[in-house]
Amino acid sequence: MAYEINETHDPNLKSWVESANDPNTDFPIQNLPFCVFTQDKHAANPRIGIRIGNSIFDFEKGVENGLFEGIPAERYLEREHLFNLSYAHDHGAKSFSGVRERLFELFVERADKRRRSRVNEVIFEATKVEFSNPFVIRDYTDFYCSIFHATNVGSMFRPDNPLLPNYKYVPIGYHGRASSIVISGTDIKRPKGQNRSDAEQQPVFIPAKSLDYEMEVGFFVGQSNELGSSIPIADAEKHIFGLCLVNDWSARDIQAWEYQPLGPFLAKNFATTISPFVVTMEALAPFRTPAFERDEGDPQPLDYLNDPTNQKFGGIDIKLEVYIQTQKMRDENIEPHLLSRSNMKDLYWTIGQMLTHHASNGCNLQTGDLIATGTISGKEKSERGSMLELSWRGTEPIDLPSGETRRFLEDGDEVIMKGYCEREGFRRIGFGECRGRITPAD
Amino acid sequence: MAYEINETHDPNLKSWVESANDPNTDFPIQNLPFCVFTQDKHAANPRIGIRIGNSIFDFEKGVENGLFEGIPAERYLEREHLFNLSYAHDHGAKSFSGVRERLFELFVERADKRRRSRVNEVIFEATKVEFSNPFVIRDYTDFYCSIFHATNVGSMFRPDNPLLPNYKYVPIGYHGRASSIVISGTDIKRPKGQNRSDAEQQPVFIPAKSLDYEMEVGFFVGQSNELGSSIPIADAEKHIFGLCLVNDWSARDIQAWEYQPLGPFLAKNFATTISPFVVTMEALAPFRTPAFERDEGDPQPLDYLNDPTNQKFGGIDIKLEVYIQTQKMRDENIEPHLLSRSNMKDLYWTIGQMLTHHASNGCNLQTGDLIATGTISGKEKSERGSMLELSWRGTEPIDLPSGETRRFLEDGDEVIMKGYCEREGFRRIGFGECRGRITPAD
Repeated sequence: MAYEINETHDPNLKSWVESANDPNTDFPIQNLPFCVFTQDKHAANPRIGIRIGNSIFDFEKGVENGLFEGIPAERYLEREHLFNLSYAHDHGAKSFSGVRERLFELFVERADKRRRSRVNEVIFEATKVEFSNPFVIRDYTDFYCSIFHATNVGSMFRPDNPLLPNYKYVPIGYHGRASSIVISGTDIKRPKGQNRSDAEQQPVFIPAKSLDYEMEVGFFVGQSNELGSSIPIADAEKHIFGLCLVNDWSARDIQAWEYQPLGPFLAKNFATTISPFVVTMEALAPFRTPAFERDEGDPQPLDYLNDPTNQKFGGIDIKLEVYIQTQKMRDENIEPHLLSRSNMKDLYWTIGQMLTHHASNGCNLQTGDLIATGTISGKEKSERGSMLELSWRGTEPIDLPSGETRRFLEDGDEVIMKGYCEREGFRRIGFGECRGRITPAD
Repeated sequence: MAYEINETHDPNLKSWVESANDPNTDFPIQNLPFCVFTQDKHAANPRIGIRIGNSIFDFEKGVENGLFEGIPAERYLEREHLFNLSYAHDHGAKSFSGVRERLFELFVERADKRRRSRVNEVIFEATKVEFSNPFVIRDYTDFYCSIFHATNVGSMFRPDNPLLPNYKYVPIGYHGRASSIVISGTDIKRPKGQNRSDAEQQPVFIPAKSLDYEMEVGFFVGQSNELGSSIPIADAEKHIFGLCLVNDWSARDIQAWEYQPLGPFLAKNFATTISPFVVTMEALAPFRTPAFERDEGDPQPLDYLNDPTNQKFGGIDIKLEVYIQTQKMRDENIEPHLLSRSNMKDLYWTIGQMLTHHASNGCNLQTGDLIATGTISGKEKSERGSMLELSWRGTEPIDLPSGETRRFLEDGDEVIMKGYCEREGFRRIGFGECRGRITPAD
């Protein structure tokens, strides 16, 4: 059970990898997220790795070297595509906790010397490798599950009717673009597009003026379902491999003009940035929370989305932060400036509900599919997960410590997202960063 | 140039494959569409084939056997994925017409005996093979390019304002689901979903009541573009490999309740059917037409979508037909009943404009991506490409020769789509069929 807390969550366990014991690290031995890395940008075969402290453990070489003897970890290495965790999880789901436990045995402080030295042969410094997308993402879906975000955006565009009547029944989602999902650190070129700011004029094709970020969390599908079959809500989390941070870059001016009647398209599909580390459901077990507490008078989820375990444990307490650093701030050595803090537990729908809803019509979800939550905003002004909300559509500019102001993103701005979990009596675990810097349009 | 008519379009050329000379075949020697097939459903490696008459030529074996010596057709066979034409076209785009001409030499009546017998070794009856998706489709985009369809649907849902103000400027599109694209002949299970027919009541989760088809044409991306780069309209067709028929199955009741504000999702992503044969741009050269003639007073396309060659040749005269055969009709041996005829040349936007618009913000299109036109309807009532339009949202039931009526599709109904090109002085070429039968919900 992914909600179960076991010895791998014991906060007193330390690792012989010293950097994993730093109280501020995102990657103590209790975390152990997966990633895909290359030692050299141009290497033909990226490999599956595990992050611990400041190191990357080459999981594939570890398997080859016999460090996973006795557990069917080899399955993780068979590949349908160029490289990915996809085939792995689809066939090896049941053995995953075995892998987690073996990783513990390999990295725990008390591990014997012989083992340590074998592990040490296949460990790299994280700063010296390149990361790539952890899965070959075939389909990408983006939800709209923060009621605070939906209400904020609705108030701007439909003041009389901010929240549409379907919102409390349907986990609203739409298909995004898989090809333009890029890894943290990739520059984001300002897109061009049609802009019609004046309803009396013809639209013009120009670089986007209202470029924005959206602070989201994504989850990767592990075990797939067949076309025509659905996934009961009670089983939903068995199909989820783990989570990452997502920045759903958005061009608000393009969006406003193009989105009716079929939804956002070019306003979003020029780029989506993800963080490199997939934090597993097992690592997140201590941070589960009840599903969102609905207001009195709110409808209960329809039966196919309703499950007592999901109600009790479906939420996840992930603290999310968004920072900005402009070119001027970099030039003047001013630290990135905190724009917002929000929390994944404030989503109206759980990830289990998103997944079950997605497959409820028989849609086949495939291993490696990325499903994102939509912008995660909270109730308070300081918890707004996009600049659209923070600057209230540009009407309330944001002051920066460099003396600059922002209504939307400008060229040279870097957006840095962070996510982490903290709970009394447990080790802090984190997601690392999801970064991207805006470069000028052509 | 894909618009150029050359000796491969000569209507007098015949093939030694007798069935290719039948005046009613979709697949004379002037067509030669690509497909992916297996001799056995369970074979591990589907192969690339060429359809001619009632036969499938095993293109891969042909290359292995030296039939394409001197032209770089081997490139077609390198594979990034399980099987596909993707890598092939991306790297071999320039050599494509060389392949078409060699295919002509192999199949033309006057081909020498030695060659014929070598070809004959790798030819199969089309009825004895299984087809699969011709590309590994990574991303699927659906446009909304028939102004007649958009106006019909708009009139039903927004009688005062049928066509939105962006329509004549923006080729409206949205991302669809790639995983649920299936090949012609695959059964389509009626999806379940949320239905709220009565605004006073809570929605219920039930099998879709308003199941529909949409008659579309799709095109496959050949050469890809890098993330951050765009594709000038004058170059657009160089990135298109060929076309197929598409049935964008739609559950109208699910759609009506879920689609605001982010567009259709579960109403569409349970299945999309495509025809197996990719008709190349070269084969379509004789059937090119001017782009849609805009009404006086309509805006001209913005510069990035405007090109004199596209205006002159951007359209394609493809005649489209939709048939239905119910269970009762099959039981009583009643032939499929024609529901509508429409034509691809009536689209408001050309495929070149769709592609250029799609990449105009830097979105990277990948070899094998499927881009569909949206429902193709014409001006007349008999030219409506969906049942929603034909039955005017169910208010005008359709009479069938079996004495039955239809407002939407019922279990057991089979929808059969056909497409073909005819022009005085040229051989008719066709797309084959795009079929799917509705099976009951679980």
